[in-house]
Amino acid sequence: MGYLDKVNSPKDIKKLDMNALNALAAEIREFLVNSVSKTGGHLSSSLGVVELTLALHYCYNCPRDKFVWDVGHQAYVHKLLTGRKEGFKTLRKLDGMSGFPRPSESECDAFNAGHSSASISAALGIANARDLKNESFNVVAIIGDGAMSGGMAYEAMNNAGQLKTKMLIVLNDNQMSISPNVGAMSNYLNQLRLAPKYISAKRDVQKTLQKVPVIGNGVYNFLGRTKEGIKHSMLPSVMFEQLGLTYIGPVDGHDVKQLIQIINRIKKLDAPVLLHVITKKGKGYEPAEKNPSKFHGIGPFDPVTGEVLAKAGGVTYSRVFGKKLVQLAAKHKEICAITAAMPSGTGLEQFAVEYPHRFFDVGIAEEHAVTFAGGLAKGGCLPVFAVYSTFLQRAYDQIIHDICIQKLPMILAIDRAGIVGDDGETHQGIFDISFLNTIPNMTVMAPKNGAELEAMLEFAVESRIPISIRYPRGSASQMLNNAQSPIELGKSEYIYNGSDIALIGFGTVMDQLVGVYGMLLKDGLKPTLVNARFSTPLDMDMAKDMFKNYKYVFTMEDGVLRGGFGSVMAQAFESFGTDGARLTSFGFPDCFVEHGTKPQLYERYGLDAASVYNSIKEIMKK
Amino acid sequence: MGYLDKVNSPKDIKKLDMNALNALAAEIREFLVNSVSKTGGHLSSSLGVVELTLALHYCYNCPRDKFVWDVGHQAYVHKLLTGRKEGFKTLRKLDGMSGFPRPSESECDAFNAGHSSASISAALGIANARDLKNESFNVVAIIGDGAMSGGMAYEAMNNAGQLKTKMLIVLNDNQMSISPNVGAMSNYLNQLRLAPKYISAKRDVQKTLQKVPVIGNGVYNFLGRTKEGIKHSMLPSVMFEQLGLTYIGPVDGHDVKQLIQIINRIKKLDAPVLLHVITKKGKGYEPAEKNPSKFHGIGPFDPVTGEVLAKAGGVTYSRVFGKKLVQLAAKHKEICAITAAMPSGTGLEQFAVEYPHRFFDVGIAEEHAVTFAGGLAKGGCLPVFAVYSTFLQRAYDQIIHDICIQKLPMILAIDRAGIVGDDGETHQGIFDISFLNTIPNMTVMAPKNGAELEAMLEFAVESRIPISIRYPRGSASQMLNNAQSPIELGKSEYIYNGSDIALIGFGTVMDQLVGVYGMLLKDGLKPTLVNARFSTPLDMDMAKDMFKNYKYVFTMEDGVLRGGFGSVMAQAFESFGTDGARLTSFGFPDCFVEHGTKPQLYERYGLDAASVYNSIKEIMKK
Repeated sequence: MGYLDKVNSPKDIKKLDMNALNALAAEIREFLVNSVSKTGGHLSSSLGVVELTLALHYCYNCPRDKFVWDVGHQAYVHKLLTGRKEGFKTLRKLDGMSGFPRPSESECDAFNAGHSSASISAALGIANARDLKNESFNVVAIIGDGAMSGGMAYEAMNNAGQLKTKMLIVLNDNQMSISPNVGAMSNYLNQLRLAPKYISAKRDVQKTLQKVPVIGNGVYNFLGRTKEGIKHSMLPSVMFEQLGLTYIGPVDGHDVKQLIQIINRIKKLDAPVLLHVITKKGKGYEPAEKNPSKFHGIGPFDPVTGEVLAKAGGVTYSRVFGKKLVQLAAKHKEICAITAAMPSGTGLEQFAVEYPHRFFDVGIAEEHAVTFAGGLAKGGCLPVFAVYSTFLQRAYDQIIHDICIQKLPMILAIDRAGIVGDDGETHQGIFDISFLNTIPNMTVMAPKNGAELEAMLEFAVESRIPISIRYPRGSASQMLNNAQSPIELGKSEYIYNGSDIALIGFGTVMDQLVGVYGMLLKDGLKPTLVNARFSTPLDMDMAKDMFKNYKYVFTMEDGVLRGGFGSVMAQAFESFGTDGARLTSFGFPDCFVEHGTKPQLYERYGLDAASVYNSIKEIMKK
Repeated sequence: MGYLDKVNSPKDIKKLDMNALNALAAEIREFLVNSVSKTGGHLSSSLGVVELTLALHYCYNCPRDKFVWDVGHQAYVHKLLTGRKEGFKTLRKLDGMSGFPRPSESECDAFNAGHSSASISAALGIANARDLKNESFNVVAIIGDGAMSGGMAYEAMNNAGQLKTKMLIVLNDNQMSISPNVGAMSNYLNQLRLAPKYISAKRDVQKTLQKVPVIGNGVYNFLGRTKEGIKHSMLPSVMFEQLGLTYIGPVDGHDVKQLIQIINRIKKLDAPVLLHVITKKGKGYEPAEKNPSKFHGIGPFDPVTGEVLAKAGGVTYSRVFGKKLVQLAAKHKEICAITAAMPSGTGLEQFAVEYPHRFFDVGIAEEHAVTFAGGLAKGGCLPVFAVYSTFLQRAYDQIIHDICIQKLPMILAIDRAGIVGDDGETHQGIFDISFLNTIPNMTVMAPKNGAELEAMLEFAVESRIPISIRYPRGSASQMLNNAQSPIELGKSEYIYNGSDIALIGFGTVMDQLVGVYGMLLKDGLKPTLVNARFSTPLDMDMAKDMFKNYKYVFTMEDGVLRGGFGSVMAQAFESFGTDGARLTSFGFPDCFVEHGTKPQLYERYGLDAASVYNSIKEIMKK
C-alpha cells in the first residue's frame, strides 16, 4: 500500500505521475476488496470507477469543486481519497461511516444520495446557484446508465439543455443497474459503444465543438490534443445532443491517462457536457467481474474465493414471496410481475424464468412501473409490482391516480419494509404504512410471518382490488406459525385472549410483541395479543373491543408513528369518545433513522422487546 | 349544427366524407366555444385537436380500440363524439360530466386522466395485456409536447422501445403546456418542425420503414400512399428512433384528410410508433388562438368577445403569494422561484419579469423541481417552489431525500391546497397535510387569510429550514384580518378565549369556524377559537391546554382525516393519557372527492359551517 498510505486528501493525488496513479488504482482495489470482505458493503460499482474517480480528483479540486454521485454505491473510492480511509473499518456500522455520500460526513460530498437518477437535478441546482452568486467552481454529476432509465434524469437533462449551465455529467456506462440494465436507452448506449462508424469522425467532432462556447484563451484545440484519448471519438447528433448537451465519448473508463486528458479539456467548455465513459462493474476483482450482481451489495466474504462467509439465517421474505407468486401464477394466468430493475432483490428471478412474457423489468422507473401496472390491470391482467418500500415513495402520486381512483386490481409487494439496517436513513422503509393509509381504496396489509405472507398473497389474488402487502428485509419469521386463521378483509387475528392489557402488532413486529407478551405473563398479567393484519381498512370491531374492554392498549409497527397504524387506531378511539382504554403506540418518532443493524436500531428507538416491556410497565405505573 | 346533430357515437363519423368531416370540425368548434362559454372549462387544448380526434375516431373503433388521453384537457372533442353531448350542459358541475376522461363515465375512456405524462405508461400496459391475452385491438396514447417534459413519459418510451409492443403514441405538439412550453425537448421539437432538410427525405423514409415489422399483406407501400400526406416527411434517427420507437412526422394536425391517410397506414405497423402532429392550441377561435393560456382553463365568458363574464371576487391567494415573494426577493437576493410549467397559475409571472435569472420554469417535472431546489439550496440560494398541492404528490420521495434529510432551506408554496372544485377527484389538494406530516424536518404551515400568508412567507424566508405553506384556490380571505399576532415556530394563535369548547382550524377553514363560533355564541356558549398555524411541529402547549382545560375539542382542516392535522392532535392527546377533553376532527373521509363547487362539496361532506355546527351539537348531546 505504498501510494495509498500517502493519500489523505485529493491534493495528494495531484503529485502522482501516470505510473503512480495506475499503481494507486491497484492498491485501491486491493484495499476495497479486503475491507469490504470484512464489513460487507457495495463493492462492484466502486471497483468499476477507480480510474474515473482518480481522474476526477486529479483534474478537479474537492471540496471547492462539487461532485454529486448518483445513488452513491460507487462512491467508496471517493470516500477513500477524501480522508475517510479509517471509516471503512466501521462502514455501515452503527455510528460508523455511511455507505452513501453524506455531506454531514465530509465537505467533499456535495449532496446526499441514496435513490437513483437525482444527481443531475441536484448538480444543476448547485451550478445555477454558483452562477447566480458569480462563483466559479466546477460541478460534476456522476450517473450510471442504470440511473439513466429513471425519468428524473431526463427531466434534469431537459432543463440543463435549455439553461445551458456549465456542468459535467459523467455517464458511467457499465451496462448494469444492480442487475443487467434494460430499456431502449440501454440498447441505444450499446449502439453508441459498438458502432464502428463513430470512430474518428473527425469532421463531425469539429462541427460539434464549434458550437460549444469555450472559456479561457480562445478556442482550445480540443480535438488535436485528445484524439488519441477518445478512442471511439465523438458522435454528433446523438440523443444527448438533441437534448442540448455536448456529448463526448464513448471513452475507456479504465485508462486514467486519457480520462485526465479529456476531463482537463472539458473543464474549458462553458456548457453542459455529457461524458460517456465505459467501465466494467467489478473491474479488477475476478469474482466480482464474473458476478457483478452478487458483489453489488454483499455481506462479509472470503477475499480469495469470493465466497460469502455468513450464510443467511433462513429463507427470506423475498424468497417466500417469489416462490408463492410463481405458484399462484401457474393457476392464475393473468398474473404479471413487475420490477423496477431489481429482479433478484425482490425475489422475482424464478418468475422471470418461468413466465418471461408475464415478467416486466421496466428499469429504475417506479412511477412508470405503477401506471404501467394500472394499464395491465385495465387490460385484464393482475399486476404484482414487487418493490422496496423506500423506492415506492417515488410512485405515491401514481398509486393515487392510476390505481386507486380507478380501483384497479393490483398488488404492491412491498419488500424491505421497516428498518433495513446497514443502508441507513435513505433506505429505511418506514413511511409506506403512513403514505398508503392516506390513499382511498388502498388496502394496507402486513403479515406476522412467512406463512402469513403466503396466505395474504393468496387473499390478494382472490380479492382483485388495490392491495399492498409489506414485509421486511431478512429471514421470514417462523413464530406463531401454527396459529394461522383465514384472512378476511379488514379483520385482525386474536392470537391470545387475555384481559385488561392488549398488545396489537402490525406485521413482523409480532416477533417483538410475543417477547413482550411472555415478559408480561411472567409478571402475572394475562394480556391479549392481536395480529392486526390490516391497517386499512381498520378492523373497527377489534378497535371497539379494545376501547371498551381493556384498560391499556398498545400498538406497535415497524414504521413512523405519524399517520401509521397507531394513528389510525387513535382516530378510531377518538370516534368512540373518551370513556375507554388508554392507547399507546410504538413506532419510529419524527426523525430520520440512521444506519446500524436492525437489533441495534430497535434498541436505540425503544422498539426491542425489553424496551417495549419497560415502557409498558412505566405507563401502567402512572 | 347539421352534422353534429347526427353524430351520437364514433360509428356515425365513419359515414362522412372529407368535406363533411371538415364541416363537422367547424360545428364542433362552434359547439365547444358556445358550451364552454356558459359553463367554463378547458377550451384551448380541445380546440387544437378537433381534426386529430376526428381522424382517430374515423380510423379506429372505440371502445374496442383504446384511447388514452394524457392529462385529459384535450378530450372534450372525444367526449362530444362518444355520446356525451348532453353532458356539456353539466360540465364540471356537481354530479355532472367530468372535465377529464373517466372510465366510470364512458367505456370509450380507456383510462383515467388528470395528471401529466402518464398516458404512455398506461397505454403500454393495456397493449401488453392485450398481447398476453392474444387480443388484437389498437391502443393509442395522445400526449402533448408539454407532457413530454415529464420524466414518466421518457420512462415509458424507454420501456416501450425495448418491448416493441404495437401501439401508437400521438405527440400533439402545440408548443404549449398551460403556458408556452420550455426545455431542451421543446427546442428539439422546434428544430424537427422547422428544419427544411427534413422535407421529402424519401430515401431515409424508406430505410426507416424497412426496419419496421408490418402486419397484414406483405410490406405495405407506406410511402407511396402517404407522401402527399406527410408534408414534412420523416426524419430518421431522431431521438424517438434512438429510443426504439418508429418516428413519423411532423404532420399538419389540422388536415383531417392526411391524418386519416397516415393513421390508417400506421395501423398496419407492428411496432411502437410515434406520430408527431403539429397543432395550434385554441385553433379556430380567434380569442383563444391569440391567448391560448387564458382559454386553457376559463370561467364563463362572452363567446363573441372572449371577455370573461364573472370577475373574481377579490385578490387570490396566488396573487398575494406572488406579490409578497417579489417584495421579499428585492431584499433577499438569494431567493429563487421555481415552477413546474405553471408560472401564471402559481402567481409567479411578476417574479419572472422582475428576476428572470432567479426564475426557473423546469417543465412539467415536479420530481426534478424539488431536487433542483435542493441543489440551489445547497449552493446558498433560497428556492421557493410554487406548486399545486395535487402535483406535489409527484415529489414525495424527493422532498424526503433531497430536502429534508439534509434539512436544506426551501419553501414549498402549495397552491390549490384543499378542495379545488370543478376539476374534481384528480385535482383535489387534500393529501398534502398528511404526506408532509410524515416527513421529519418538514415544517407544515397554513395561513388563516391573505395577510397571514404574507406573514408566513416572511417567517419562512427568515427561518432557513424546509417549510411548506399551503393555501387554497380562490380569493384570499379577509376574515380576522386585524387579529394578527407574530408567527412563531410551532405556535398556534388563540383568536377568542372561551371555555369548555374549543375550535381549532388549520388554514383557511378558519372561515367556516368563525361561522360555527358565531352560531355557538348564539346558543349561549363561549367557545375558544384557535388558529393552529402549524401542523408540524404541533403546538404541544396548545394541545396540552386543550386536553386539560376543555370538555370538547374540535379540529378542522381542508384535507383528508387520515394522517392530517386532526390525527397529529389525536396522537398528542394519546400521549397525555385518557383523562381529558373529547377530541373530534373534521376533514375529508377516506374516499375520493368528486367535482362540484367548493361550497357544494363542503356541504356534501359536512364541512360547511352549518353542518359542522350541527355535528358539534350532536356530539355534545351524547
